[in-house]
Amino acid sequence: MLRRAARSSAVPVITFTSDFGLRDPYVAEMKAVILGLTRAVHLVDITHEVDAHDVTEAALVLEAAVPYFPRGSIHVAVVDPGVGTARRGLVVEASGHVFVGPDNGIFTAFLAAPGWRAFDLRAAPLRRPTVSATFHGRDVFAPAAAHLALGVPPARFGPLVSDPVTLALAEARPARGGLAGVVVQVDRFGNLVTSIRADKLAALGAELEIRIAGRRLPFVRTYGDLQPGRAGALLGSQGRLEVAVREGSAAARLGARRGAPVVVTRRLATRRG
Amino acid sequence: MLRRAARSSAVPVITFTSDFGLRDPYVAEMKAVILGLTRAVHLVDITHEVDAHDVTEAALVLEAAVPYFPRGSIHVAVVDPGVGTARRGLVVEASGHVFVGPDNGIFTAFLAAPGWRAFDLRAAPLRRPTVSATFHGRDVFAPAAAHLALGVPPARFGPLVSDPVTLALAEARPARGGLAGVVVQVDRFGNLVTSIRADKLAALGAELEIRIAGRRLPFVRTYGDLQPGRAGALLGSQGRLEVAVREGSAAARLGARRGAPVVVTRRLATRRG
Amino acid sequence: MLRRAARSSAVPVITFTSDFGLRDPYVAEMKAVILGLTRAVHLVDITHEVDAHDVTEAALVLEAAVPYFPRGSIHVAVVDPGVGTARRGLVVEASGHVFVGPDNGIFTAFLAAPGWRAFDLRAAPLRRPTVSATFHGRDVFAPAAAHLALGVPPARFGPLVSDPVTLALAEARPARGGLAGVVVQVDRFGNLVTSIRADKLAALGAELEIRIAGRRLPFVRTYGDLQPGRAGALLGSQGRLEVAVREGSAAARLGARRGAPVVVTRRLATRRG
Repeated sequence: MLRRAARSSAVPVITFTSDFGLRDPYVAEMKAVILGLTRAVHLVDITHEVDAHDVTEAALVLEAAVPYFPRGSIHVAVVDPGVGTARRGLVVEASGHVFVGPDNGIFTAFLAAPGWRAFDLRAAPLRRPTVSATFHGRDVFAPAAAHLALGVPPARFGPLVSDPVTLALAEARPARGGLAGVVVQVDRFGNLVTSIRADKLAALGAELEIRIAGRRLPFVRTYGDLQPGRAGALLGSQGRLEVAVREGSAAARLGARRGAPVVVTRRLATRRG
Repeated sequence: MLRRAARSSAVPVITFTSDFGLRDPYVAEMKAVILGLTRAVHLVDITHEVDAHDVTEAALVLEAAVPYFPRGSIHVAVVDPGVGTARRGLVVEASGHVFVGPDNGIFTAFLAAPGWRAFDLRAAPLRRPTVSATFHGRDVFAPAAAHLALGVPPARFGPLVSDPVTLALAEARPARGGLAGVVVQVDRFGNLVTSIRADKLAALGAELEIRIAGRRLPFVRTYGDLQPGRAGALLGSQGRLEVAVREGSAAARLGARRGAPVVVTRRLATRRG
Repeated sequence: MLRRAARSSAVPVITFTSDFGLRDPYVAEMKAVILGLTRAVHLVDITHEVDAHDVTEAALVLEAAVPYFPRGSIHVAVVDPGVGTARRGLVVEASGHVFVGPDNGIFTAFLAAPGWRAFDLRAAPLRRPTVSATFHGRDVFAPAAAHLALGVPPARFGPLVSDPVTLALAEARPARGGLAGVVVQVDRFGNLVTSIRADKLAALGAELEIRIAGRRLPFVRTYGDLQPGRAGALLGSQGRLEVAVREGSAAARLGARRGAPVVVTRRLATRRG
């Protein structure tokens, strides 16, 4: 049996998601601030390679990665084109996790299910003494994460927020005899991750056909069901319909990018024979 | 109130700054050596994407990031074009931090204030048994950092050094009615970080005008004071004058790179009306 | 003297080697699964920038980096073009380390010396409850590493494997009056790491000459023996013959890439005068 370490005494996990890249010292400065407040933490990078200012991409990355972290993990997310404007900062409790970042839709995926609570991150004593106008990741969100790890309850950070910003993330929608969606992510392998989720796909049955970039592709269970170099679609590891080329790049082969339309339909019985 | 974890019993922090990149196993080999000597450490990457052999860039990154780390942190910095020559290795105590790396100017920022002490990193028992001619980061500096984390005092590593190498880092200099400097860093967002520091800027007052790349730009408090897509200058999060385009790249918009001249002057009252 | 932390009670080290890159959340998902099972671990990235599907490159990286980690370290390696096919997963004990990953040759370097034991990673209770068809790194190998860190013995993961897959890695072979090999890695600095190892090189003596890309290069002890900008060969930090340009890129200067042939011979006495 998988044993769980989710004792309340376990060292807290703090994750980081941003568009800072790894060349500049910004990520290190956030970690530095946290380690100045507590060393009893595990610091884990989710990614810092979100496209600059692309809140939607960050929201999708969090949606994909967060569920694999233990309950109680603290997730700092800083894709923050509105830093220095009137946009709020948030502490959000949702799905058994805690989130810290700007109120710009980056936590959309976790504000869909009921039971979330959000707080306006205002409490001055829980910030750095001097807050820059351009780097709240370091001066506001990192110290908040450290204080959460030290046991400060979310409600201590500020008043309840009932209307956090949410984004209209791409989903699947019904299409003639199936579902239509779009490519939401192109991964390093050139796999095309789509907006069509496992649960919607399951309702269509197992005999499926995918149309993308003017091609019809088979639906398979795994890469191994494709010949090397051939394209197909499958239920990917992120819980979404994915278009892949075995040992190759679907993005390159199909010339498809983020936003490319994809349609999945039942495979016609007459096409089997 | 911000609580501090700077008890002497806190797990030591060791940081890494290099030009090794993340593709080759060099960074991992340094960490491996440290973990073979002690596991009671927090290992934090500042950056490994310094341009190859660019000691000046590394010196600026350390200057920016180190102050955010807790006092007593140990900073391993390895941009080391002179490895295998007669250049010394150093352990430096300065500004409440400890530094380990080559004596090539990489610690310049911390050798400006009085009170530093530097030691010639010679003690053979505190190195790996076999020292390669080309990778002192792994064979000399990493074990030194581990031994420092274990409590070995800096003076044990070798004799005092009174003349560590320093670089002439770009600063601000007086110009007609203001200050002249240069761009010292272009960050991932295309922000242009300059050699003009907050303290010098403050002496000019708050009504400022910036000239760079043939353009006159307003001085603002934060990105939010600019229209999206517009360029301006502000006091950036690194404590330096920064030229930015809101939700865009100043580097791309202005065609400016590292080394580009920048001048800041008081804004003429007649220009306001 | 170097002190060792290799007490059995030391916090286990888990390393990661993959072709996942750092943009996608895949590496974070592996770490998340591990931290859900145990927090008493040090997580260290070796590299995630192996070329997509390049098992040979990953095998060489592991060979280079693993020996610097403390004995008992657990190494998760996931370059896995065969995921979702019938390829086995392995737990391998070898050289005092433990390895987890696909049975595709990625552990070749550690299966050369006698004394290894390999196990077919089949035990369902030691996997995630749901195993995706395309991401065994997260669903099979990461939980195996966590359980190893918790003390589950390798033999518990499945039956012994006597015939793990191995790759024919490039080696040195005798050539007229010397050794012939190939470039196996080009590092970030443009250094050309070859298939000719220190032990073979030593048998040739110290007066050597290297031929690569139509050039004859001197054999030196360290970069400092070359003039800045000049090319030469030396025994590199990875224990292999390396071709370098001092403060420059040998790859760019010589136009040589992975696979480029290199020959090393004794230097003729008559050439000295």
